[in-house]
Amino acid sequence: MASIVLLSVKQTAQTKAKRCLGSRLKGLAGAGGPSATFLPGREWLSKDLNLRFMSHGTAGRSAAGTTKRGALAFSGAVAVTAAAVVGFLANANHFQRAEMATTIPQKAKKTKEEEGDIAQRCRGFMSVPVTDISVLEKRKDEMSTKMEMLIMETQAEFCKALEEVDGGTFKVDKWQRKEGGGGISCVMQDGKVFEKAGVNVSVVFGYLTEEAAKQMRSRGKVLKGKDGKLPFCAMGVSSVIHPKNPHIPTVHFNYRYFEIEEEDGSKQWWFGGGTDLTPVYIDRDDAFLFHNTLKEACDKHHPKYYADFKKWCDRYFYVRHRGETRGIGGIFFDDLDSPNQEEVFNFVKSCARTVVPCYLPIVRKHLNDSFTQEEKDWQQVRRGRYVEFNLVYDRGVKFGLATPGSRIESILMSLPLTARWEYMHEPGKGSREAEMLEVLRNPKEWV
Amino acid sequence: MASIVLLSVKQTAQTKAKRCLGSRLKGLAGAGGPSATFLPGREWLSKDLNLRFMSHGTAGRSAAGTTKRGALAFSGAVAVTAAAVVGFLANANHFQRAEMATTIPQKAKKTKEEEGDIAQRCRGFMSVPVTDISVLEKRKDEMSTKMEMLIMETQAEFCKALEEVDGGTFKVDKWQRKEGGGGISCVMQDGKVFEKAGVNVSVVFGYLTEEAAKQMRSRGKVLKGKDGKLPFCAMGVSSVIHPKNPHIPTVHFNYRYFEIEEEDGSKQWWFGGGTDLTPVYIDRDDAFLFHNTLKEACDKHHPKYYADFKKWCDRYFYVRHRGETRGIGGIFFDDLDSPNQEEVFNFVKSCARTVVPCYLPIVRKHLNDSFTQEEKDWQQVRRGRYVEFNLVYDRGVKFGLATPGSRIESILMSLPLTARWEYMHEPGKGSREAEMLEVLRNPKEWV
Repeated sequence: MASIVLLSVKQTAQTKAKRCLGSRLKGLAGAGGPSATFLPGREWLSKDLNLRFMSHGTAGRSAAGTTKRGALAFSGAVAVTAAAVVGFLANANHFQRAEMATTIPQKAKKTKEEEGDIAQRCRGFMSVPVTDISVLEKRKDEMSTKMEMLIMETQAEFCKALEEVDGGTFKVDKWQRKEGGGGISCVMQDGKVFEKAGVNVSVVFGYLTEEAAKQMRSRGKVLKGKDGKLPFCAMGVSSVIHPKNPHIPTVHFNYRYFEIEEEDGSKQWWFGGGTDLTPVYIDRDDAFLFHNTLKEACDKHHPKYYADFKKWCDRYFYVRHRGETRGIGGIFFDDLDSPNQEEVFNFVKSCARTVVPCYLPIVRKHLNDSFTQEEKDWQQVRRGRYVEFNLVYDRGVKFGLATPGSRIESILMSLPLTARWEYMHEPGKGSREAEMLEVLRNPKEWV
Repeated sequence: MASIVLLSVKQTAQTKAKRCLGSRLKGLAGAGGPSATFLPGREWLSKDLNLRFMSHGTAGRSAAGTTKRGALAFSGAVAVTAAAVVGFLANANHFQRAEMATTIPQKAKKTKEEEGDIAQRCRGFMSVPVTDISVLEKRKDEMSTKMEMLIMETQAEFCKALEEVDGGTFKVDKWQRKEGGGGISCVMQDGKVFEKAGVNVSVVFGYLTEEAAKQMRSRGKVLKGKDGKLPFCAMGVSSVIHPKNPHIPTVHFNYRYFEIEEEDGSKQWWFGGGTDLTPVYIDRDDAFLFHNTLKEACDKHHPKYYADFKKWCDRYFYVRHRGETRGIGGIFFDDLDSPNQEEVFNFVKSCARTVVPCYLPIVRKHLNDSFTQEEKDWQQVRRGRYVEFNLVYDRGVKFGLATPGSRIESILMSLPLTARWEYMHEPGKGSREAEMLEVLRNPKEWV
């Protein structure tokens, strides 16, 4: 842990407030504020912009389903394994119902000159961003804007890659948080390749108490607020993918950013994140590809990042009562605020850009692997362990479940569609299942 | 809660120590002590007694399985929804490997006169009891003996009834706890009727710290020990049955007894327990039969027991993050020590004797009910909720998982063989699934 702490305390990050939080909160106060209003149906589209988003064949179907079922509002997006982000939600007692993210009207006509760079990029997203596009354009140099664009891009890139390989389409739910912000939940269930795939974005803001703010940071730093209240902003993208074929591993990633404004106007900020793989059979080539892709991304930024964050990952995803890690790890980091905001953002960007090259080649390689009922059963037993980790240990999930008003469906979206618990299940000696267990009990170096 | 507290604080139970704890602990000190030694294989049988236990066709198979898999030692028997009992296990860091419970040799010959009443009764058990039969005979008037006999009888009676209806046989594992005591775990998995059925007995003893002893009782009473240590004895029977057919409900019960000896030799004792039903479809006749059978047992002992313990049950088995109870309840009580030991024991005996008449008629009624894939899926979704309750809220499970050295397989034996999590699952209006949810959200009176 020492070297990790070293990485993150070298420099205390304080940048002058650029009114980002202030302007977000202005939106909160008035019902018509730019970042707090969403219109139902197709009307959510920013009226001043001509945008075309990714086309999703099931959007119409999705709309019907959402209306019938009463779409849930709070996405566990950042909640999943991101305790720090969920910490922000401690005061979030009420979430509003989600608005359905519809397809983009094709008829609106605007000249190219009216569109900024931001608007152009938004065209490829799964939905309009949480923050109004005109607001993002106005604040395009602020970190909160850069990060919101990155998480939206990561979501779109990953969903698109999964849809391509599966042939199915994501159901897209856009939801709004009463206290400020909202999110976009993309779920594909019972696809051809994926049993359950969830990719969430959330961008939330509001006020924190000093006590809540203190609990947020793993270093427990005391933060001074105006009248004890601190404006905050938290955003992240997170995903858990459970494939059907037991030879295709489960993957999870989460990248997140936080800002808290102190009494004197100075801003505390930090990043967290990670990507980890949970196969049920060991494939050394897959493990190498996955870890090496992460290592290459880390190495561009700091020679110690990969080694430190790999260790942190093994330590975090540990099912203590079983004496096993959840999977074969990857990287995990939190509270990262050095050497400077731009460089940490670039590191997070490098990581976020690995989610497709880390995982999709593995999916494609095993797409047509045949499997036996015994292999499927073993996958189901391992899925049971995944559930145990998520319900018993994951800080984000625990915090989310304990927070009144949290949107449980979104927090528990990370659970597999199906799982199994066999009494005294123990693989035979020398079996491939026993080999997997051995690795989970003694984490390995893969690169 | 008020009326419940009233029931249990009317009289502080203190009986003079009858050397029960003392003599148990003597057995602990020496390796050859009567209640701490178990011989492997068939030799566990008390050599002075000629006993025939219930015949179990799979005992031989079970033995092989146990040896191969390394049978686990600590049964979650009392752990399941019995936080107070598990509390006793706080200091239990190491459990020894289980000895297999074998069939009883038929050749040993003793005259009837050599057998006491205790030995006769033991013949019907699933295994030899945890405490040596000769010790039980010597102390046959002590409450710990009466309770151990009751829990063994309850286990045998219930297992026998389940085997009869399923056609399968229970795998019987006898395990030993290094610090004192042990248990008998009976599991039937993937039977004809039952997906997973577990019935556990455990009898554990040793020493508690004053702090641990205080945490044990829901009333948090301060107990004074000799040099800060308090001899204790805890025992219980517990069971969770998950059937295959979605029209047959899941049942859970647990009955337990505790003794703690204070510095002056006086003994604190109390009982806890309950039985509750978790159907996935409402059948009012089943609900009436189940609750009425419990009510009749309660009414024989106190006019307020059923009403109070029914409320307590709904309150305990509450999945807070879903705003639902786990099932349609039953009764639940803890810390019961009035009006006197004999009367509370008689009440617990009445309850324990209802487990078969509460449940088996319901099983038989629905044995041949046909069901659709949709009904099976709904059962699986509800099983997912069962997992959520057990992993997130059940005090016994939480305590067990957090206790180093606990035998996880036994604690998690209560989890179903299979479960399912669907994103935003919401039954259609007016459906039988919606009717079930309505009851879980607003607990009903059934009698």
